[in-house]
Amino acid sequence: MTFNEQDLGAILHGNQAALGNVRVVLSHTSHPGNIGAVARAMKTMGLSQLYLVNPKRFPDAAADAMASGATDVLASATVCNSLDEALQGSVFAVGLTARRRDLSHTMVTLRESAPQIVAKALNAPVALIFGTEMSGLSNAELEKCQQLMTIPVNPEYGSLNLAAAVQVVAYELRLCSVGAVALDDGFPLATFEEIDQFYTHLEETLIKIDFLDPKHPKRLMTRLRRLFARAVLEKEEVNILRGVLKAAGQRK
Amino acid sequence: MTFNEQDLGAILHGNQAALGNVRVVLSHTSHPGNIGAVARAMKTMGLSQLYLVNPKRFPDAAADAMASGATDVLASATVCNSLDEALQGSVFAVGLTARRRDLSHTMVTLRESAPQIVAKALNAPVALIFGTEMSGLSNAELEKCQQLMTIPVNPEYGSLNLAAAVQVVAYELRLCSVGAVALDDGFPLATFEEIDQFYTHLEETLIKIDFLDPKHPKRLMTRLRRLFARAVLEKEEVNILRGVLKAAGQRK
Repeated sequence: MTFNEQDLGAILHGNQAALGNVRVVLSHTSHPGNIGAVARAMKTMGLSQLYLVNPKRFPDAAADAMASGATDVLASATVCNSLDEALQGSVFAVGLTARRRDLSHTMVTLRESAPQIVAKALNAPVALIFGTEMSGLSNAELEKCQQLMTIPVNPEYGSLNLAAAVQVVAYELRLCSVGAVALDDGFPLATFEEIDQFYTHLEETLIKIDFLDPKHPKRLMTRLRRLFARAVLEKEEVNILRGVLKAAGQRK
Repeated sequence: MTFNEQDLGAILHGNQAALGNVRVVLSHTSHPGNIGAVARAMKTMGLSQLYLVNPKRFPDAAADAMASGATDVLASATVCNSLDEALQGSVFAVGLTARRRDLSHTMVTLRESAPQIVAKALNAPVALIFGTEMSGLSNAELEKCQQLMTIPVNPEYGSLNLAAAVQVVAYELRLCSVGAVALDDGFPLATFEEIDQFYTHLEETLIKIDFLDPKHPKRLMTRLRRLFARAVLEKEEVNILRGVLKAAGQRK
């Protein structure tokens, strides 16, 4: 297929509502220049929501320099003290990782994940979480994710820099968002806070019913989080589950 | 669809023969750092053939620094004095451009172009041509291209830097090359040299038969090049066309 000027305009100006709901969350970024380059990469594809969790240096002249014409993205960035803060109000948290992790969540390629991200972002905020330049996401951060996403790379040299990874992800999201329409899948998804409260409630209840030994928790909560993360819980489901937990806790 | 470790291995190690036939041609690049960043972007996706047409400074320490672990791509880069030299032996030349050009060739998006590039690269070298950081490809360079390709960007800010553009293109090619198989479309394509000789023969013949006034050539050759470029000529077709030209030239 080829396209004419008119088609091109339609493609370029397509429905990009979803992109406004996509948060790029950079955790503990070391180099401010990378933050600036990320802002530029985001803006070229129409993303604007930048969240910075404990950046080493920000704001910084190096960030502004690398942002080129995207300093507005830096100026409106939200600096947070924790990943939880950056995830407030979001309904889907996707972590970017280069490798499969032990006991990891569902892992999908960027191309598989992008349509899911865009579909959810049509209705509510979605977060894409990028770890540090040197070591990626910590295990504690991975546990907050509902999906792990990877960019297929050369197995002999997969060293994408932070801005390059954001560029490729933002490109996929832009292509997916063109012509995307809100799916009437009916049920609103639970927010990060609602799910977090559910996990706390779950853990307390498991201790209360003597299923979980807080002195030897092993990886029980990690396994359970993985299960529920894969499900991408709806609000109503969280309410139901918490009702079950409440009932179970009272019996003891 | 989700995938397991084994699938991931298959995807990562898929048929990437085509990638070895993809040349990244950078024309008149100003900043050596950009050349290094391009080398890194290429290698992360398994590309290795870098051609530099009159780079302002190369080799250069800034290129090495930005290449990170991809200095082998720089070390094996081919430095050329002209775009023609960089296109020697290639059968398909694709120019990257941000905007529609006057009287331009067929213009397609990266996603549409990538499968065509990979299919051709399974059999013979293909060239992807990137212009200067400031002004992109010149009109003379565009005329050498058989297809113009664009990366859809934010219409309000489309300032992808050179390495970011190469990164996105290389990512698409990598995904397309996985599982790609040689299409038995039967007929070998004409090389750049064969097509170039054909154009020379065509122009000489048009002058000889008084169709083209060399003092007032207008844009006749540009229009004809555009037509034949779209066709992506096969070797045998070039032979036939030159047979026609020879016959036409002798009649006069």
